[in-house]
Amino acid sequence: MKAAVWHQAYDVRIEDVELKAHQETDVVVRVAWAGICGSDLHEYQEGPIFIPVDQPDPLTGGQAPLTLGHEFSGVVAQVGSQVTDFKVGDHVAINPTITHHQVPDNVDVYDGYNFLGLGCDGGLAEFVNVPASNLYALPQDFPLRLAATIEPTAVAVQAIKEGGLRFGQTVAIFGAGPIGVLIAAAAKAAGATKIIAIDLSEVRLQKALELGATDVIKSDQVDALKELRRLVPAGIDVSFEVAGVQATFDQAIRATRPRGKVVVVAIYGHSIDFNPMALTNSGVQLTSTIAYSNESFKQTVALVSQGQINTEAVITKEIALDDLVTDGLEALTNDKSQAKILVRLSGS
Amino acid sequence: MKAAVWHQAYDVRIEDVELKAHQETDVVVRVAWAGICGSDLHEYQEGPIFIPVDQPDPLTGGQAPLTLGHEFSGVVAQVGSQVTDFKVGDHVAINPTITHHQVPDNVDVYDGYNFLGLGCDGGLAEFVNVPASNLYALPQDFPLRLAATIEPTAVAVQAIKEGGLRFGQTVAIFGAGPIGVLIAAAAKAAGATKIIAIDLSEVRLQKALELGATDVIKSDQVDALKELRRLVPAGIDVSFEVAGVQATFDQAIRATRPRGKVVVVAIYGHSIDFNPMALTNSGVQLTSTIAYSNESFKQTVALVSQGQINTEAVITKEIALDDLVTDGLEALTNDKSQAKILVRLSGS
Repeated sequence: MKAAVWHQAYDVRIEDVELKAHQETDVVVRVAWAGICGSDLHEYQEGPIFIPVDQPDPLTGGQAPLTLGHEFSGVVAQVGSQVTDFKVGDHVAINPTITHHQVPDNVDVYDGYNFLGLGCDGGLAEFVNVPASNLYALPQDFPLRLAATIEPTAVAVQAIKEGGLRFGQTVAIFGAGPIGVLIAAAAKAAGATKIIAIDLSEVRLQKALELGATDVIKSDQVDALKELRRLVPAGIDVSFEVAGVQATFDQAIRATRPRGKVVVVAIYGHSIDFNPMALTNSGVQLTSTIAYSNESFKQTVALVSQGQINTEAVITKEIALDDLVTDGLEALTNDKSQAKILVRLSGS
Repeated sequence: MKAAVWHQAYDVRIEDVELKAHQETDVVVRVAWAGICGSDLHEYQEGPIFIPVDQPDPLTGGQAPLTLGHEFSGVVAQVGSQVTDFKVGDHVAINPTITHHQVPDNVDVYDGYNFLGLGCDGGLAEFVNVPASNLYALPQDFPLRLAATIEPTAVAVQAIKEGGLRFGQTVAIFGAGPIGVLIAAAAKAAGATKIIAIDLSEVRLQKALELGATDVIKSDQVDALKELRRLVPAGIDVSFEVAGVQATFDQAIRATRPRGKVVVVAIYGHSIDFNPMALTNSGVQLTSTIAYSNESFKQTVALVSQGQINTEAVITKEIALDDLVTDGLEALTNDKSQAKILVRLSGS
């Protein structure tokens, strides 16, 4: 079958590979659609980051070269002998996270995790083996194309939950990339009344508005803090730092009300300058989010498939697997107007 | 009357001053005992910090030179014409905090605050005017000497509350100065099962044990993180950073369990190096505390006067007002075995 195989940085090949034998507890999924994630881009540009190269990943057993793709949807093509919950033809969303399952679900990622498509073979291929426990049934009439956006949406749902956002509260989102705009969509679904996205890019802010932002701030043209204070004089209840730079980190704290929360969502490449008095003087609390719990993934399947979170607008392009490098990875590198690019496998 | 008057750094004079006229809503308190706080020491060594010099403080109306002292107890000597809750002879604890009272009690300090004894005349004097709303009645048989420790204990109680500590949980305290050891006492009163104090000083760690610590770690002799992990393998529930330096900030995060909390209690003089991924990778949440709410002060009056928090061991010395500079401020500067030094006014 055809698959997108990572060999090393700037060496992702569309090649013919054999699907590995599946376990008795696995399901073979015929992939419909697969999204390209920022993590895939990082592996392409500067990997290996998550991808095991020198020895098999202790959690997944995988090792490069391996098939990318951890945001995907599909149809059950075959079930292992011990699988009872799924049958051939079922439409499914896939939680690609592999954890130790030794601690409660809400902290399960903190003692180690990896993903199908990073730690072992993933869904940028015609078929993929998935443990049945990582599958979620979808309504047969729900578009598999939108189902491929469930995984990044689960990241946004987890972020909202980590922020402790309550019905009716206010939200600021610093950075309107794919995850930032999905946080806007999740915040809307959670009943936030002000959802303010801050970014430098007009096109990204437009995307934020389409997905659920009530207001946007183009921060190279307006004093973001002043504008936030004008929109929400009492200070923001929950701010999301999705840009990963000093300026937005500082702004997020300053924009938030006493005992409000700043949720670090971005992956920081290096240290920043921080005086803890920024918290002491403001009363702001700092927390973070990474990936999602099983519970959050399950909730996201419901929220997206029931239409409470409509992710349609995050999709900016659909490409064929053969064009993954040129029209996918390179496009995301060079064209900042791209949000989520989907790769069509068997999907229509 | 005699009072300890701050004129400028290294110029605190014991001099004869006239008590200002009190307001109709004030009570005149004959001070029994007054503690010396780290803030007093900072004003002495490097002030003005809180003390208004160039213009009257907007909250308190005070201006240097002014009388120090914000940790004190005493007996009501006179009541303003509108005061109905107190009468001459009542024993009282004093919440010295002056706020705007424009927002809820739990966030009232975050839009500005000052203190009797820093923003205007305080309790290192024979008498002091206090708004009746800042007074708390004490049982007449409770020692006024211990009552002078209620104010710093309220800081510790607030810190415990900010950490969300629950009955039976585990605590680590980085820095066993006066506030650190009072946090140990408050944690014990709150029912923590492991209360681990970390410091370089043997004598401070001994003090922590006397006040409630279950274990101590002398961090120049033992790998603190390794020892903490040995004592609490799952990671600490709530850690308190009371030292204010890079090393303990980093350690506090690393010692704490996923979704546990680090409470910044220390006042940081400058920025530190911080990679937000320290939170993302650990799942630790970062919060802070400053001063206390009225509710926490009231709760502290109850906890101390009912004996649930016994602060006796924090008192290392009793001195006369005349000796404040030499035996108080200079002693705290030079003798690291000192914790809380009390100044005897009318107390016995």
